[in-house]
Amino acid sequence: MSEAISQVEAYLERTATERMDEYQAFLRIPSISALSEHATDMRIAADWLADQMRDIGIEHVEVSATRGHPVVYGDWLRADGAPTILVYGHYDVQPVDPLELWVRPPFDPRVEDGRIYARGAADDKGQIHLHIWAARAWLETHGRLPVNVRYVFEGEEESGSVHFDEWLEANRHRLGADLAVISDSGFYQGNVPAITIGLRGLMYAQVDVTGPSQDLHSGTYGGNVQNPANALAAILAGLRAPDGSVVVPGFYDEVRDLSEQERAEFARLEFDEAGLAREIDVPALFGEPGFGVLERRGARPTLDVNGLWGGFQGEGSKTIIPAHAHAKVSCRLVPDMDPRRTFDRVRDHVLAIAPSGVRVDVQLISLGMWSLTGIDHPATRAAAKCLEDVFGQSPVYLREGGSIPAAASFGSMLGLPVVLLGFTPPDDHAHSPNEFMTLANYEGGIRTIARYWEALSTGLG
Amino acid sequence: MSEAISQVEAYLERTATERMDEYQAFLRIPSISALSEHATDMRIAADWLADQMRDIGIEHVEVSATRGHPVVYGDWLRADGAPTILVYGHYDVQPVDPLELWVRPPFDPRVEDGRIYARGAADDKGQIHLHIWAARAWLETHGRLPVNVRYVFEGEEESGSVHFDEWLEANRHRLGADLAVISDSGFYQGNVPAITIGLRGLMYAQVDVTGPSQDLHSGTYGGNVQNPANALAAILAGLRAPDGSVVVPGFYDEVRDLSEQERAEFARLEFDEAGLAREIDVPALFGEPGFGVLERRGARPTLDVNGLWGGFQGEGSKTIIPAHAHAKVSCRLVPDMDPRRTFDRVRDHVLAIAPSGVRVDVQLISLGMWSLTGIDHPATRAAAKCLEDVFGQSPVYLREGGSIPAAASFGSMLGLPVVLLGFTPPDDHAHSPNEFMTLANYEGGIRTIARYWEALSTGLG
Repeated sequence: MSEAISQVEAYLERTATERMDEYQAFLRIPSISALSEHATDMRIAADWLADQMRDIGIEHVEVSATRGHPVVYGDWLRADGAPTILVYGHYDVQPVDPLELWVRPPFDPRVEDGRIYARGAADDKGQIHLHIWAARAWLETHGRLPVNVRYVFEGEEESGSVHFDEWLEANRHRLGADLAVISDSGFYQGNVPAITIGLRGLMYAQVDVTGPSQDLHSGTYGGNVQNPANALAAILAGLRAPDGSVVVPGFYDEVRDLSEQERAEFARLEFDEAGLAREIDVPALFGEPGFGVLERRGARPTLDVNGLWGGFQGEGSKTIIPAHAHAKVSCRLVPDMDPRRTFDRVRDHVLAIAPSGVRVDVQLISLGMWSLTGIDHPATRAAAKCLEDVFGQSPVYLREGGSIPAAASFGSMLGLPVVLLGFTPPDDHAHSPNEFMTLANYEGGIRTIARYWEALSTGLG
Repeated sequence: MSEAISQVEAYLERTATERMDEYQAFLRIPSISALSEHATDMRIAADWLADQMRDIGIEHVEVSATRGHPVVYGDWLRADGAPTILVYGHYDVQPVDPLELWVRPPFDPRVEDGRIYARGAADDKGQIHLHIWAARAWLETHGRLPVNVRYVFEGEEESGSVHFDEWLEANRHRLGADLAVISDSGFYQGNVPAITIGLRGLMYAQVDVTGPSQDLHSGTYGGNVQNPANALAAILAGLRAPDGSVVVPGFYDEVRDLSEQERAEFARLEFDEAGLAREIDVPALFGEPGFGVLERRGARPTLDVNGLWGGFQGEGSKTIIPAHAHAKVSCRLVPDMDPRRTFDRVRDHVLAIAPSGVRVDVQLISLGMWSLTGIDHPATRAAAKCLEDVFGQSPVYLREGGSIPAAASFGSMLGLPVVLLGFTPPDDHAHSPNEFMTLANYEGGIRTIARYWEALSTGLG
C-alpha cells in the first residue's frame, strides 16, 4: 500500500459515520425517473448530488439540462500528464411497486446485518456515492486526484436513457477522455469481484412483407394469392437452423474465435443452468451447440425475432388473407462483426429467400457496436489488481449479452475503451422490492476506486 | 311450356307495373343492418316483407325475433306429397358510403336503360322480391304452389349473420325440408346464367407458442432461450411447401380428384387472371401447380395464416425475446375432406415439428362443412333446365371458394342439399356505390323460380 493510499484509508476510517448519514440522505430522495409525479424529486436529487460534488472540490459542476431529466456533470482536470477518466453512473431509480412486498419503506433507508436497504442503495446511487467519496478522500488528504476525472451522472437510465445520446453529442467538447469507467454493475455469484470487459453489439431491423392492397377473403382468394403471413414465416424460418445457429451466409465470418484463455475464463465461472431455466420458466435452455451458457451470452452472436404481426389478432376467427405482415428482427453482435455488414447480409438473405408473389422490404432500425476491453488491457489489469488488494480475491471477467446504452455510446460515439467496474452484491434485488447494498462492498468499492485512480496515474499502457 | 306456366306468365305480364312499384317501395326502406341508427328501418323492412307475404297467401308468417334483427319466416305447406323447399334470402343491405360516389340517391330507386339502381336492388332485396312474385303468380293463378316452401329471410347477412345459427337451432322444428335454395348469388361474367353447386368448408385453429414466463431482455438471454416468435415462424413455415401446397401428412388423402367432366366445366369458364392480379394489386397470382385459378378456388384445399402476433409491434425497437407468439391458421376444405380430421392432422403435424424449448398448443376455433350438389343432382338438373328455358342458354356451374354462412348451416345443421340459384348481373356493384339489378334478370328470375317449383313438384329423384 502506498503512503498516499494509507492516508486515504485513514481518512475513510474516521469519516464512516458522516459518509453513512450522507448516503442515507441521498437514498431518501425518491428520484424515480419514469414517474412524472417525481419530476421535482429528480431535480432535488440532481441538485443534492451537484452540491456534494462542489463541496468536495470537483469543478465545473453543472446540473445540465436535457429534454428529460438533467445530467449532473463535474470534472477535476488538474492532474497534468495523467490520463483522463470518464466516470458514469445514474442518480435515478426504478419505481417501487409492488410496495406491499417491501419489508422496510423503500425511501427510508435501514442498516441491518451489514446491509443498507433502500431503493437505489445498489442501483445506482450507492455506486455514485462511492465514487464521490473516493474523490473526496483523495482531495481531503492530498488536495488532488491522481488522474483527471470527468463525472457524468445520468437521470434517465431507468427510463430508457432516451435523451442521453443527444446530451453526449451536445457535450462532446467536454468529454475528451482516455477511458470510461462505468459503475452500474456488480459482483459475480457468491459475491466474487468481477469486471465486465465485454458487451455485445446490436443490429435491429424490420422485415415488411406486402401482398394484396387490402385484406382479402380467404375463401374467395385462398389458393390463388401468396399469403404475406405465410411468406413472412417462411422468411423468418429461413434465418436460423433448428439448432438455433444462424444460416445467413457469411454471418459468422468475422466472429472472433474464443482463445484457450478466454474459454478457461468462461469455464471458471460457475453457472446454474437449471436455476436459470426455472427462473424464466422454460422447460430447458436452448442455444447454439458447442458453447456454454456464458459463452453464448457474451461471445456468440444471435438472431432473434423481437416481434411479429399481421392480419387478424382478435378472439375467434376472421377469414382473411392479410394484406401485409411484419417482423422485428435483431442480432446481438460480438467481436469482430461489423454491425452494418451484418445488416447487409441479413437483408440480402431475406430478399434471396423471399417467396414469390409478395413484395419484401428490410429496413434498418439501429446499429450498436460491441465492446471488448481485453483481460490484458492495462485498464483491466489495473482494476483487477485493485480489486484483489481490497477484496482479497482476484476478479472474474464477465462478458455481458446486452448493450448498456451508456457503454455503447462511450464506445461508439466517443471511441473510448470501457471498463465496467461495479460493486453491488449479485443478489441485490435491484429493480425489485427490498433492494440493498452490502456495506462491505460499498466501503471496498470506495477503496478500490481510490487505488484505481492511483494505479492509472502513470498511464494506460 | 305447361299450361300452368302459361297462365303464370300471363299473370306476370299484366302485373309488371304493380310489381315494379312494389319493388321500389321495398328498396326505399334503408334497412342497413350494420348501423344502429337504422334499427327502426330494419323493423319496418321486416314488417313490410311479412305483410307482402301474408297478402299473397303465404302462411304462418312471422317476424321472428333474434338477439339482433328479426328473421322473417313464412311457409306454404299444402302440396301434399311434393318436396319441401327451404328458400333463403336477406332483407338487410350494406351501408352506402361513400355516398358522394352514388350517381342517384341509394334509397330513391331509379329505372334507367333496363336497370333499376338502388342499394339492395341486387343484394338481396331484388332476389327476395322475385321469390315473392313467383309464389304470388302461382297462388293468384292456381291457388296453390307446386311444392311446399318455407321462406327464411334473414336480417343480418350483411353484418355477419351472428345470430342466424342460434335462430336456426331454435327453429329446427319448422325447418324440415328436402332442399335449400339460396338466392343470394348471380350470373357469371358476360351475364351467363350460373348455378353455384359447391362451396368450400373451413377448419379454423389457433397456434399458441409459449416460452418464458415474461418477455426477456434479448441481450441477457439471447442465445440461451428458444424464442417463441422464431419457433412460431418455423412451425408455420413447416405447413406449406414453397409452391403453396400443404405438407401436413395426409392432408390431401380424402381430396376427391376432379373428374374429366368437372375439369371440362371449369375449363369452359373464361377467367381473366391478369385482371384479378391487377384488381388486388399483387405482382402475380400464386397457387398450387397443376390447377387453374377456378379449380384452386373451388376444388382445392388451402392452408392460410389469417393472422399472427407476438412481442413488440410498435415503432422503432424493443430488444426482447417475446414470452409468447400466436397465429390463426385456417384451411379451406373440399370434398371429401373431414373438417375434424383435418384439424387433427394439422394439430399433430404442428406438434410434431414444434421446436424444442417452447410449449406449443393448437386449439380448434371452428369447423364448417364443404357442400357440393353435383351437376347430376336432380335439383341441379332441374334448375339448369329452367334457366335455359327462360334465358335461352344453359348455365355454367360454379364452385365458390368461401362458405356462405347460411349455406354452411343448411348443409351441416339441417343436412340439406343446397342449390345457389341467383340472378344478379355479375357487375351489379353489390356492396359498392351505384348498385343495380338488370330488369331482364329480375323478371327472368321470377319465371325461372316459377318453373323450378313446377319441375321439382314430382320429386327430387
